[in-house]
Amino acid sequence: MNYVTADLTISLDGFVAGPRQSLEHPMGEGTERLHRWQFEQAEENAAEIAAIVEAGAFIMGRNMFGPIRGEWEGDWQGWWDENPPYHAPVYVLTHYPREPLVMQGGTTFYFVTDGVESAMEQARTAAGSASISIGGGADTIRQFLNAGLIDELSLHTSPILLGEGERLFDGVSALALEPLSARSTSLVTHVRYRVTYAR
Amino acid sequence: MNYVTADLTISLDGFVAGPRQSLEHPMGEGTERLHRWQFEQAEENAAEIAAIVEAGAFIMGRNMFGPIRGEWEGDWQGWWDENPPYHAPVYVLTHYPREPLVMQGGTTFYFVTDGVESAMEQARTAAGSASISIGGGADTIRQFLNAGLIDELSLHTSPILLGEGERLFDGVSALALEPLSARSTSLVTHVRYRVTYAR
Repeated sequence: MNYVTADLTISLDGFVAGPRQSLEHPMGEGTERLHRWQFEQAEENAAEIAAIVEAGAFIMGRNMFGPIRGEWEGDWQGWWDENPPYHAPVYVLTHYPREPLVMQGGTTFYFVTDGVESAMEQARTAAGSASISIGGGADTIRQFLNAGLIDELSLHTSPILLGEGERLFDGVSALALEPLSARSTSLVTHVRYRVTYAR
Repeated sequence: MNYVTADLTISLDGFVAGPRQSLEHPMGEGTERLHRWQFEQAEENAAEIAAIVEAGAFIMGRNMFGPIRGEWEGDWQGWWDENPPYHAPVYVLTHYPREPLVMQGGTTFYFVTDGVESAMEQARTAAGSASISIGGGADTIRQFLNAGLIDELSLHTSPILLGEGERLFDGVSALALEPLSARSTSLVTHVRYRVTYAR
């Protein structure tokens, strides 16, 4: 079976998205500060940033593809430019069918309307023996955690307090986690966890 | 000014105490699992365990001294045996006055009824140039964080999900934190944070 990973940036008080999500603040207010480690310390965190897009196939939620909810509009590319960083098949969970979207550099977005297990099955077929990465957002990662499908969770903890917003672990249970490695810079603590399921 | 530290064990979902605190479970249900790293991996975590009781003076909350609320009873020693691990003055925050309690090995418990600033002043006098450690529990550490009095917060994160209980950072704000170091074993991730205050 393919090794399944997920990466997520989280505040020290446990939030993965801020309050009042909107088109202007798609991840909620205050979340720019969550991601300072990627933008202001790209070199110092190069290994962790690269690891986020190292997989044979990816699965992501609808909001990770782009901010507009509802029916697809034409050849809309969501957040992405011509050459997304994945360079592999990306399975987007959605309620609305759409033909695959072929981008430059080897990235193709496939739109999956029949749930996480189906997305995983398609990703396994595409990935061969390579790993599969659950690309977010938090609700998608939570669904895969609760389905018992994630082997390794990499948490990038920003040393900030958001105070309110969406918590990663709300409604998640029955996980047994084991730290595999930990490393910090002045803007982030990286911890990789092996996930097993108590069932 | 003395360098002020605090150590706290916290679950991966942010809880420092479990739900339904009682005499049988003074830190709430499920919290035995929080502290496995200290008991089952004492050698592997020897440096971090030793650091918890390395200071020139200590301050702790009433429930950290012992589980019974209300008036003091005779020469009651709370949780502690004849030779507590502090080997230094310990200032216990309480609403009930009591004479100092001299233990073996250099530990003396002083009972402070006039608040955190007073406890800090007495601890500074006693500690000389040595550091001061805020010994817990979480509510006490929160009071000192909110009073702007803590320089370094060491969080020992156990890779478990408690799901409910008391959160360290509820009601704490205006903190700027910077990771100083990170290390993990299979039962814990240790991260030391420098705390500064945005005011």
